[in-house]
Amino acid sequence: MRVNDEHRRTIALASDGWSVDIIDQTKLPDRFEIVRIRSVAEMAHAIRVMQVRGAPLIGVSAAFGLCLALREDPSDVGLERAWSLLHETRPTAVNLRWALDRMKSALQHVPPGERVERAYTLASEITEEDVATCEKIGEHGAAALREIYRALGQGRPLRVLTHCNAGWLATVDWGTALSPIYRLHDEGVPVEVWVDETRPRNQGYLTAWELGQHGVPNTVIADNAGGHYMQQGAVDVVIVGSDRTTRTGDVCNKIGTYLKALAAHDNGVPFFAAVPSSTIDFRLRAGRDIPIEMRSPAELHERPGVRAENPAFDVTPARFVTGIITERGVAAANETSLTAMFPDRA
Amino acid sequence: MRVNDEHRRTIALASDGWSVDIIDQTKLPDRFEIVRIRSVAEMAHAIRVMQVRGAPLIGVSAAFGLCLALREDPSDVGLERAWSLLHETRPTAVNLRWALDRMKSALQHVPPGERVERAYTLASEITEEDVATCEKIGEHGAAALREIYRALGQGRPLRVLTHCNAGWLATVDWGTALSPIYRLHDEGVPVEVWVDETRPRNQGYLTAWELGQHGVPNTVIADNAGGHYMQQGAVDVVIVGSDRTTRTGDVCNKIGTYLKALAAHDNGVPFFAAVPSSTIDFRLRAGRDIPIEMRSPAELHERPGVRAENPAFDVTPARFVTGIITERGVAAANETSLTAMFPDRA
Repeated sequence: MRVNDEHRRTIALASDGWSVDIIDQTKLPDRFEIVRIRSVAEMAHAIRVMQVRGAPLIGVSAAFGLCLALREDPSDVGLERAWSLLHETRPTAVNLRWALDRMKSALQHVPPGERVERAYTLASEITEEDVATCEKIGEHGAAALREIYRALGQGRPLRVLTHCNAGWLATVDWGTALSPIYRLHDEGVPVEVWVDETRPRNQGYLTAWELGQHGVPNTVIADNAGGHYMQQGAVDVVIVGSDRTTRTGDVCNKIGTYLKALAAHDNGVPFFAAVPSSTIDFRLRAGRDIPIEMRSPAELHERPGVRAENPAFDVTPARFVTGIITERGVAAANETSLTAMFPDRA
Repeated sequence: MRVNDEHRRTIALASDGWSVDIIDQTKLPDRFEIVRIRSVAEMAHAIRVMQVRGAPLIGVSAAFGLCLALREDPSDVGLERAWSLLHETRPTAVNLRWALDRMKSALQHVPPGERVERAYTLASEITEEDVATCEKIGEHGAAALREIYRALGQGRPLRVLTHCNAGWLATVDWGTALSPIYRLHDEGVPVEVWVDETRPRNQGYLTAWELGQHGVPNTVIADNAGGHYMQQGAVDVVIVGSDRTTRTGDVCNKIGTYLKALAAHDNGVPFFAAVPSSTIDFRLRAGRDIPIEMRSPAELHERPGVRAENPAFDVTPARFVTGIITERGVAAANETSLTAMFPDRA
């Protein structure tokens, strides 16, 4: 996507052909800085402190992390150790494991001496797949949004609310929840976005930044405000991403998503989750079985003597989800629909 | 209530007998500072920038503002002008108008030369009434909470979630939503409080501060997190204050309250509003008719080029409200129950 009118991806091989350039997202939107990652330890750190973030992007980052690890130690032990180190960085998003397992199961049958080259090939494949997947999500999501826009019939912009950042910064390119928005905008459909600030880490400002770079009108609001705007009829549709979705359609996403789903339900506003199938955990039935990452209270505040807790995700039960936008189409949020769409995964 | 183990009120006549000392709440919890208010202009400013805040306290502050105005100009014109100046400071909380109207209707029949003295007497009465009202809210609210605590039957603390600050800082003393909590705590019932941070102005840190001063265990969480904790069974009851409640029981309170009410409803958690009857607007039937104050986007952020909007309140429909705790008892959130409890006001 565009940064100062240049095309960019969030992650790319560096010019040396082996190290990995990422955008340091902890610096955005104030500063746009590229960081060069040269070891698996650096990549694990980047994932942990959220220099890279977003379920799809941390999957791709982990894949490249494994490449860097194998340059240091291509043995079985090295492969296993890198898998563990990277897997432990973030517990909720299932992509991390999906990408790491995919790499490991392919690499363990490759002789150590050939592993590095094969790993880079695989990581590149995962990268390109992510781009294609997000582009398809944009296509299917845009079809769903176009229908809502047509039904408005008032010659006013479509007003979309989103929570956290599920834009291109959360993926390699395009984004998940924002991909349909970019597509509609590029087609000339007027779209305006309500951007939840998304405390405690304020990823809403990432969303506002990338929408702004692409010319999509947007307004940041406190996380508290979305329900009020829905009551006022100022939200036509909600779209969010997901860090892990169960086979029954329970959607785990950034903390606070559940509250917006409740408000959407109470006000008859459609609520969509845009999820690459790599974020669907077909082994899990119930959202309550998804491990919820507890992050440092210091992300909220650093006042001495004030106790705080900081769960990073919550689960929106399937009954509040209008549809799940995947790279193969829009599924209903239930087991029948999801497994019918992904018989190869289920 | 207690500050560094001394008893304090949020507002009091100064030692000179005419100016008014307030706690500058924009400095809390970092600094405890008393500001001396010497004119109606200073009081209007203090209300507008939220040095004093909370529906009951701004009513009392407005009453004292009128006293200060009459010292400058006790004429009918002066009275009218001060009424308007103070009334315009904040549009949503109905106490401001309630206190101002009460003062005006009493004072307009008093000769200008006697108005100042009479005004101070009236403002004192309103002050003492607020303290008595909040104490009664504590009594009735504690009875409701005690029942919930008994039903838990697990020998664990009662876990209460609150939004914004409806503690003694929002009143003269005791608070509204927090008054029952202080009472239970003082009786030896173990109570723990989940404190919503309450963006954009972070009044949750006021709540954490005053609960801490009183020794009540509490934990600050992001506004996004309350729904998740309710899903986890970690919240036994929600109590909030209200800036204006309609005769049908729609509760207008700090932005984000509605989202917590939805989550409470979805998880079978009782949801109470603690409201002095001065905050009930018996002229209004529907919550949608309450004017919602739009405050400066700068309260959210000051990044150049990022558009933001900042509504300060939302309305929780009566159907999500388990009970309305008033100084006369706990009413159901409907017209029959509220008008039966306040036949003299309805």
